[in-house]
Amino acid sequence: MDTVQDMLSQLKQFIAYPTVSSDTGQRQTMYDCADWLAQHLRSIGMQKAVVYPTSVHPLVYAEYRSDPSRPTLLFYGHYDVQPAEPFEKWKTPPFLPAISGNYIVGRGASDDKGQVFIHIKAVEQLLKETKGRLPLNIKFLIEGAEEIGSVGLRQFITAQKQLLQCDAAIVSDSRMAAIDEPAITWSLRGSLNVEMEIRTMGKDLHSGTFGGCVTNAGTRLAEFIAGLHDREGRITIPGFYEDVREYSEAERALFARDGISDDSLLHDAAAFFPWGERGYSLYERVAIRPSLAVTGLSAGFQGQGVKNVIPSTATAKFNFRLVPDQDPVKIHRLLEDYTKHVLRDTHLRLTYSSFNHPVRVPLNDPYVMAAARASREVFHKKPKFLMNGGTIGAVDHLHTILDIPIVLIGFAQAGDNMHAPDERFYLPNFFKGIRTIKKTIQYAAVNH
Amino acid sequence: MDTVQDMLSQLKQFIAYPTVSSDTGQRQTMYDCADWLAQHLRSIGMQKAVVYPTSVHPLVYAEYRSDPSRPTLLFYGHYDVQPAEPFEKWKTPPFLPAISGNYIVGRGASDDKGQVFIHIKAVEQLLKETKGRLPLNIKFLIEGAEEIGSVGLRQFITAQKQLLQCDAAIVSDSRMAAIDEPAITWSLRGSLNVEMEIRTMGKDLHSGTFGGCVTNAGTRLAEFIAGLHDREGRITIPGFYEDVREYSEAERALFARDGISDDSLLHDAAAFFPWGERGYSLYERVAIRPSLAVTGLSAGFQGQGVKNVIPSTATAKFNFRLVPDQDPVKIHRLLEDYTKHVLRDTHLRLTYSSFNHPVRVPLNDPYVMAAARASREVFHKKPKFLMNGGTIGAVDHLHTILDIPIVLIGFAQAGDNMHAPDERFYLPNFFKGIRTIKKTIQYAAVNH
Repeated sequence: MDTVQDMLSQLKQFIAYPTVSSDTGQRQTMYDCADWLAQHLRSIGMQKAVVYPTSVHPLVYAEYRSDPSRPTLLFYGHYDVQPAEPFEKWKTPPFLPAISGNYIVGRGASDDKGQVFIHIKAVEQLLKETKGRLPLNIKFLIEGAEEIGSVGLRQFITAQKQLLQCDAAIVSDSRMAAIDEPAITWSLRGSLNVEMEIRTMGKDLHSGTFGGCVTNAGTRLAEFIAGLHDREGRITIPGFYEDVREYSEAERALFARDGISDDSLLHDAAAFFPWGERGYSLYERVAIRPSLAVTGLSAGFQGQGVKNVIPSTATAKFNFRLVPDQDPVKIHRLLEDYTKHVLRDTHLRLTYSSFNHPVRVPLNDPYVMAAARASREVFHKKPKFLMNGGTIGAVDHLHTILDIPIVLIGFAQAGDNMHAPDERFYLPNFFKGIRTIKKTIQYAAVNH
Repeated sequence: MDTVQDMLSQLKQFIAYPTVSSDTGQRQTMYDCADWLAQHLRSIGMQKAVVYPTSVHPLVYAEYRSDPSRPTLLFYGHYDVQPAEPFEKWKTPPFLPAISGNYIVGRGASDDKGQVFIHIKAVEQLLKETKGRLPLNIKFLIEGAEEIGSVGLRQFITAQKQLLQCDAAIVSDSRMAAIDEPAITWSLRGSLNVEMEIRTMGKDLHSGTFGGCVTNAGTRLAEFIAGLHDREGRITIPGFYEDVREYSEAERALFARDGISDDSLLHDAAAFFPWGERGYSLYERVAIRPSLAVTGLSAGFQGQGVKNVIPSTATAKFNFRLVPDQDPVKIHRLLEDYTKHVLRDTHLRLTYSSFNHPVRVPLNDPYVMAAARASREVFHKKPKFLMNGGTIGAVDHLHTILDIPIVLIGFAQAGDNMHAPDERFYLPNFFKGIRTIKKTIQYAAVNH
């Protein structure tokens, strides 16, 4: 049996790979990390662990077939991470993982390498404890492109439907209700990522010579962005809310009871003020209402000092989060119509990079119930059933193509700085997570 | 006598120094270029050429004292240049000057190295033709910090008032009326450069988890920028127009006759549409009306691909252009009051980096008239007396501290891409410029 030190040292090795999937300069790193992962999966006793290339980054598949008459659980996770910029805001280097108090700190610590490692260590321990006689069959699917929209995963799952056949999938890429309170996520928002460039004139101009008589692309883009929300905090794209599901007073009362309070959300966010659509709690705004975030904005000169220039181009990156029953393809079309009209005085380039449908998971599924029982026993609290504002494209694909229930049981915290500097993972819950997954496997086998 | 090839080869050497004054990495380059310039001024026969350090970049002073009873002309110019970014938009490398048809192309070709070289070559030729018996005394003052607001120049002129004593200054850092039509600039706008950073929350957040319930700094800054102009194209800062000089119908009729047409300005700008303050011609918008340009804008992730982040900070660079009788210090105070009020929901940091007062030059000065006569004879057209939307801080300092008239006679074109990629200078006017300056020196000596 590994000691705690061994486990942490392995996890540190895993995090140390700068597997930024959006960085084309890291292609080799992705292969190195996938190879390391496959090797590690073989070392814990998996019968087979293979690195599969995809159209972008490789993924790792592994399996342990115990008894064909028993059910099969598929553990899904991802080894790729978000970019670590801005580097200077990290207290310790993002790819030099460090233990700080009860936390392990580094890019990917909680999203998702730490949580992938919970699955692996749970299976490793069960394999040792049962001397290889697992109560069910185990498969791992660990991809390398989750943060860029799970590119290539849909094709892989479609092509390898037979290989991936299973009875349920366990996904740990979400957060708990609180540091001592487990959670099972039953709702994820969909997403749509779009990049925009506008051009207002043929070239950049001198801000003295021409200041006051031509359209500044930075100002023009700012006006456009300012106009995307109205005074009620609603998105102004015509037809945007057409397919948004409405909820009854009873359902909303339930959200208010089980959901996260405004105060708690604001505290987790370190936000000065609330913001958003009037008439909804902050939890509802991220759970049952769609949103639109400017994730990148750029125009003119951004270096040190001064450049007297009127920029002729400006770019923005937009991230939509969608809810049932919005269709990302339809939303993209509405956006296109809207921008073509509103920005008809500019040369406009609109490209979309990825999208996913919103997902809902049935709560009465036996595998969901197995995970709920396991987490209640380990954490001594009933798990909360949460709606999450985030998106896991893989969940959409697994659910749709394999036609299986998905158990979304996460062990991260809201304050773990996922996608931001100083990303971290709370180690006591790393170890409790391992125990929870072990029990989930056992109850899933019994339930069946 | 230098051949044309010699002159162009020397000018290429001059342009090849990447003297970007706003780039702290180029400190040594600035000294190298200043040394080269001083050496070159000695080589053409100047009695003295000295590199003076300032608080930022060195400047070059040179003199030729011919006869103390004769007047003294000071030639001012600058050897520093704007940043060359974005590099990828240049057809040829910015600091590898190239001849392309009738143009020399490179950063600084027209602003201001090419025009500085007109002064130097004119004096060189006169020194050779007169065998050192110049009809008046010549001084050169060539600074290295014009593009960052002539930092250090005010102190230098104040400290070296005796050394710099002269009867008039000739400045060639402006443009002609057209490629075959000379111009003397009698009006320059002032400027004020300000940087702003806003923070809307303690840290960057995940756009899924928190999208829709917190204030996106990029969106907030866009709203602020969109609100800086009203529907009439007027700047909304309270009190901003208080001191703006109004003009009579007769004066405005003159501007309309002598000024640049809307069509011509739009063509030079390669702009799709006009923009700006209603009720004024485009020429008036840049000449007698103040303006505000966003010169830089930045928030969130700007690399390749997607980062699902809600930015907590956003930054903008603003460049105001001011007209008589606006005071940059007062405008900065008004801006501060305005932003503190409008952005009171954010943490705000506002810093100003440089400012200059607007300047007007008397048209009936004998030195201005000497330059007008010289340019009429060389170009066979009467020079236009223009108002320029730009700013030359040095003109403000020379005028105020030395109490001398300034002759602003420029040889660049509106289409020369100053401050933009593919900056260039029209060579036929480089050679005509040399003849014009030679004649200006001769008429200035006679006039006196």
